[in-house]
Amino acid sequence: MKAIAENINVMSKSIGAAMAERNAEPIQQLAQECTEAGADLLDINLGPARKGGPELMEWVVNAVQEASDLQLCLDTSNHEAMEAGIKACKKPPLLNSFSAQPDKLENILPLAARYDCEIIGLTMSTHIPLDADERIAVAYEIVAAANELGITNDRIWIDPIILPIGVEVGQAHAVAVQEVLRMLPEVFDPNVQTTCGLSNTSNGAPDELRGVIEQAFVPMLAACGMTSAIVNAKDKELMRTIRLIKDFKNEALYSVSDAELK
Amino acid sequence: MKAIAENINVMSKSIGAAMAERNAEPIQQLAQECTEAGADLLDINLGPARKGGPELMEWVVNAVQEASDLQLCLDTSNHEAMEAGIKACKKPPLLNSFSAQPDKLENILPLAARYDCEIIGLTMSTHIPLDADERIAVAYEIVAAANELGITNDRIWIDPIILPIGVEVGQAHAVAVQEVLRMLPEVFDPNVQTTCGLSNTSNGAPDELRGVIEQAFVPMLAACGMTSAIVNAKDKELMRTIRLIKDFKNEALYSVSDAELK
Repeated sequence: MKAIAENINVMSKSIGAAMAERNAEPIQQLAQECTEAGADLLDINLGPARKGGPELMEWVVNAVQEASDLQLCLDTSNHEAMEAGIKACKKPPLLNSFSAQPDKLENILPLAARYDCEIIGLTMSTHIPLDADERIAVAYEIVAAANELGITNDRIWIDPIILPIGVEVGQAHAVAVQEVLRMLPEVFDPNVQTTCGLSNTSNGAPDELRGVIEQAFVPMLAACGMTSAIVNAKDKELMRTIRLIKDFKNEALYSVSDAELK
Repeated sequence: MKAIAENINVMSKSIGAAMAERNAEPIQQLAQECTEAGADLLDINLGPARKGGPELMEWVVNAVQEASDLQLCLDTSNHEAMEAGIKACKKPPLLNSFSAQPDKLENILPLAARYDCEIIGLTMSTHIPLDADERIAVAYEIVAAANELGITNDRIWIDPIILPIGVEVGQAHAVAVQEVLRMLPEVFDPNVQTTCGLSNTSNGAPDELRGVIEQAFVPMLAACGMTSAIVNAKDKELMRTIRLIKDFKNEALYSVSDAELK
């Protein structure tokens, strides 16, 4: 299971300010910290990036690439910013994300085809389906749309969408997500990749309990077949859990130091 | 997922001494602590119990039942001690355990049939199979033996046998155990129950890291379908993980306090 660091995010006060001031140093330091913490990819989240998005994305991508060799995951709903980011990437990035919503299908998805990128596909259209079957139906729809543009299944990362465990029907959604992950190998051949925004699950819980909730859920998702997760790479306990997951899936060679905090 | 407390064990220095001296107080206190910690069953492990086993088991069962109403899991290779324990139990216990070894098939298994007990079946004969298919073959053999005596699948708790992650082929065994859990619903209809000796996985690791390793693995096993685990109920972090597993499987109603240490 790959860990995608969620940390380089315009919504973070210090990182948002650094982006606004084009001050590379805090962003590069964070990129380096996430890399050393064991992240496999770095997400760069610019949100809507309405004003000057393309120039900002290009600048952030270049700054991050000076600090880390990891594959990047570009995260913005501004498709012009997305395209500028792709062009700046040294290796094809993962695009975060498209869904069955028309604007995402028309604007983000074709970029993945044009530039040979991997892409995250959310199992939602105008709403997030409650049950597993409906999520699978949307997954089928978005994989078909991607395939039609020549994007093969191994480059599609399905995100079955985690909601906070604490909201109404949050537990039913958590069960549905696990079911979707178990069903996907029977639906797609070859199978797709999978991911999720793990920290959604603990949204609303007190800060000091968020990691605990995520550490219980992410091994369950991994055991259901999830191949990656977008996570807080600064949470040392969580990154330790991810090292142990890789061991228990036999994706990495176990060492007792994997259980230590690093 | 049910938690079976492993703590009442003759191998524990203080509990072993209390058993030898027929000093009920420390045993009852431990039984109470495990109950308050959230255990669903209490294992009473007397080991081989060669000398005076029946009388000792009867005494321990009675002592524990004065302190806790939980279902008991009787754990001894002495079938006379097992029978004495069953007779002392207020509600039918879970018997721990039988396997495809002739003495277990002849001595322990018939007790489950005679006294209408649940029973744990280990997927091993003279050796522990390395791969999932071989474990399933043994599971098939022991379930057939149990069925022949009238023990229905819902009363058979298959234990696919966890080995320490740190031993050679420990990771391969961990993967096989997960595969077995995923395969069982396709093999048995109705499905069997499942369990494991969770602390085996961290055997050999430094004491302060054992819980960490177990906390990463038990959610994975639960997500693969495991319906119970024999655990250290005195590990507060582990019991918290088990509460959250029950929430993420929608077996219990989530409360943010489930993520707190209790």
